[in-house]
Amino acid sequence: MAKAIPSRSENYSEWYNELIKKADLAENSAVRGCMVIKPYGYSIWEKMQRALDDMFKETGHSNAYFPLFIPKSYLSKEASHVEGFAKECAVVTHYRLKNAEDGSGVIVDPEAKLEEELIVRPTSETVIWSTYKNWIQSYRDLPLLINQWANVVRWEMRTRIFLRTAEFLWQEGHTAHATQAEAEAETRQMLDVYARFAEEWMSMPVVRGSKTPNERFAGAEDTLCIEAMMQDGKALQAGTSHFLGQNFAKAFDVQFLNKANQQEFVWGTSWGVSTRLMGALIMAHSDDDGLVLPPKLAPIQVVIVPIYRNEEQLAQLSERILPLVKDLRKAGISVKFDDSDTNKPGWKFAEYELRGVPVRLAMGMRDFENGTVEIARRDLKTKETVPFEGILERIQALLDDIQQSIYQKALAFRQANTFKVDTWDEFKEQIEKGGFILAHWDGTSETEEAIKEETKATIRCIPFDAAAEEGVCVFSGKPSTRRVVFARAY
Amino acid sequence: MAKAIPSRSENYSEWYNELIKKADLAENSAVRGCMVIKPYGYSIWEKMQRALDDMFKETGHSNAYFPLFIPKSYLSKEASHVEGFAKECAVVTHYRLKNAEDGSGVIVDPEAKLEEELIVRPTSETVIWSTYKNWIQSYRDLPLLINQWANVVRWEMRTRIFLRTAEFLWQEGHTAHATQAEAEAETRQMLDVYARFAEEWMSMPVVRGSKTPNERFAGAEDTLCIEAMMQDGKALQAGTSHFLGQNFAKAFDVQFLNKANQQEFVWGTSWGVSTRLMGALIMAHSDDDGLVLPPKLAPIQVVIVPIYRNEEQLAQLSERILPLVKDLRKAGISVKFDDSDTNKPGWKFAEYELRGVPVRLAMGMRDFENGTVEIARRDLKTKETVPFEGILERIQALLDDIQQSIYQKALAFRQANTFKVDTWDEFKEQIEKGGFILAHWDGTSETEEAIKEETKATIRCIPFDAAAEEGVCVFSGKPSTRRVVFARAY
Repeated sequence: MAKAIPSRSENYSEWYNELIKKADLAENSAVRGCMVIKPYGYSIWEKMQRALDDMFKETGHSNAYFPLFIPKSYLSKEASHVEGFAKECAVVTHYRLKNAEDGSGVIVDPEAKLEEELIVRPTSETVIWSTYKNWIQSYRDLPLLINQWANVVRWEMRTRIFLRTAEFLWQEGHTAHATQAEAEAETRQMLDVYARFAEEWMSMPVVRGSKTPNERFAGAEDTLCIEAMMQDGKALQAGTSHFLGQNFAKAFDVQFLNKANQQEFVWGTSWGVSTRLMGALIMAHSDDDGLVLPPKLAPIQVVIVPIYRNEEQLAQLSERILPLVKDLRKAGISVKFDDSDTNKPGWKFAEYELRGVPVRLAMGMRDFENGTVEIARRDLKTKETVPFEGILERIQALLDDIQQSIYQKALAFRQANTFKVDTWDEFKEQIEKGGFILAHWDGTSETEEAIKEETKATIRCIPFDAAAEEGVCVFSGKPSTRRVVFARAY
Repeated sequence: MAKAIPSRSENYSEWYNELIKKADLAENSAVRGCMVIKPYGYSIWEKMQRALDDMFKETGHSNAYFPLFIPKSYLSKEASHVEGFAKECAVVTHYRLKNAEDGSGVIVDPEAKLEEELIVRPTSETVIWSTYKNWIQSYRDLPLLINQWANVVRWEMRTRIFLRTAEFLWQEGHTAHATQAEAEAETRQMLDVYARFAEEWMSMPVVRGSKTPNERFAGAEDTLCIEAMMQDGKALQAGTSHFLGQNFAKAFDVQFLNKANQQEFVWGTSWGVSTRLMGALIMAHSDDDGLVLPPKLAPIQVVIVPIYRNEEQLAQLSERILPLVKDLRKAGISVKFDDSDTNKPGWKFAEYELRGVPVRLAMGMRDFENGTVEIARRDLKTKETVPFEGILERIQALLDDIQQSIYQKALAFRQANTFKVDTWDEFKEQIEKGGFILAHWDGTSETEEAIKEETKATIRCIPFDAAAEEGVCVFSGKPSTRRVVFARAY
């Protein structure tokens, strides 16, 4: 097989890079840190978008679009926000090129300098809250529930396709509310939407919790997150939902007249997931033979490969298979009938395994005569010969089963790699082996930073479902009331 | 009515601006030339996107995503391309801000200067063809049929919402082919897709034709376009499809091994439509009371307003109306049942007229008792009282009728405002009155420019369906073989 990729145990990082390349998902562009998302990868992203967008709309949100550029002065209006983003932003300073007078080519026209520099949005709180100021006057204008699908830019120094790129695609929800309680409920609701998407669509179990103050979004009062475990035991933050308090309302003077006829500052939230989810999807399920995709997000759910020696055989096989193709499509299942003669069946099998097609059917002349078909599932790599009759129902059931099965597998993996740890020596030992560590923490930033410094482990979250439990901090020995999740992370 | 807008005859331009504002479609942002597309406007754009995207996929195209930034040197590789875009591009020169040492705030960090400036894409031919170089080796890799939905930036000095903005949203198709004939066929196919979308979805008749060399896309060998007539008689270019020849293939050295085992340069096309279509949609159909939307693109297709004096009446009306709401949704018709008591029915009627909801139902107690309902169509502003029984089928038929009817109205308007003109005096007189002028042209750029200089009229296109006809140029008196379309344009 020309397309072999390194195994995960050999080199997890190279496995990831090569898989992205060989499965035609994406590639680095000539522009530093910016990726090209190739058609096959983009079609997975489109399915993610569609599912998320439907969920946002079901929860009452509308899409809108705000400018790519943010005036420098806007970014500065919320103090911790500019602190968080100033160090890694692309700055537009001019609006024209011209031919160099010495004929050396095209140069930036020094006479076309902007009065105020523009930042390419790293996130849109500032430009959106400056707009909300004009949209919100009274409690009748609230809640304002808006989402945007957009590209954003953060000038990361070390980039990695899907996981950390200078430009990435995402959605960012920005909502405004009359009360703190309502904004907090929205923050939590959207985290739950993300968790549901991760678990039901991506088949990827997640831990829901709050970030520590150190790890909060720049400008938020509270950041909620979902954390997933990758197959190398590292954590990946898969989505965040921020309770902004009145910070941006105050920075942009967004007030409303409440029912008691008093001016009040508005309460805000923001929440986002990005093309980073593509990285999570790949690392959560795929194996040494290629992608493993949950059926709900697979661009091709079923591939059918006829095995034939001549045109006549192909004609016979096609006659039986084509009505099935039609029925599958009618049932909303995406199917590819690969009858091309440029590649052999074995090559095709390997190729569709690499691309993560969940179900593969193969039919040769013996199957044809016996009224059977071979059906293989990508996740378990098992296959069996079954009657052709009733195959549609079997495929439907199998797709459902695969969706569940890879979720259960990932969940079992996470459970097997989550450890309660109570001593510092044990902590240091376990963190080298990978996985999530449930340990007591004294609640201080100093301890959190010292642990990170010594082990590269961060507090992924304070889980919502952590039981109250008396204990002592694994690092400082000071008292603690519940365990938090530590891990090394992407 | 608080929301009244100026009439078209009074001030067409103000009518357009106020309509966009009052119907909550979009607004200017604080960033010069960049717009905010508000939820109602964006939901129309989403419907356009969905319909176009389906048509692109039906014709074999896939979506992908390419970087926002283009290295300055890339833009320069195709000579006429850089000539066309250098004068109006946003240039990123730095990648970091920092706190000023004098405490005056946040400034651009002079130490974070990029080695090579990056251009925010005004269009993506250069970055895409530099990528295609790696994707195309053999004829087996062709055709490559890719589309991208993206934001682009052109630093226009005079901007106007939807029609001409510094940042806008669009799709750009970029295809690569083995032969000239195939690339030319693709160019024409995509123009026909645009024409079909304009006519069948936007109910907007268009003239299909070729641009003159003067009006071609920078870097194209041929530009095809669709041109629509707005209600003030001006033309609006609603979509373009470019045959790029081998220009970008040569600029980026994209060659392939053909079946005869020889290296050849690839043939290319590109094609795009943008949020400009929103401007076209508004100006093609709307009237002095607000938007008129074709049902296929209307975010709300049917609004139902109950007319009641008390809760008991509302309960009775709701009991009859809610099953209809459910049936309409089941039939794929978007419906709003506006039973809010904050506004009176008259206010609601005006509001939904302003927003262009194609069909309005109203039911009061008399209707309730008589088993009737009032049905009104937005486009003709007619209404009638009809039996409630069978209302679903009536609504479906009415939506179809409106879709057709506003197309026919726009077509009749264009026909009534298209004039064959044979003398220069007549030309100058007619151009002041508006409309399309069909006139002979000698085929030279000099004449085209002289006419533009004197009358502000441009050649919108050389229509595909222009009959061969001997004549003399309306300006120069030189011989001509067919008429072209002149108009003032947006």
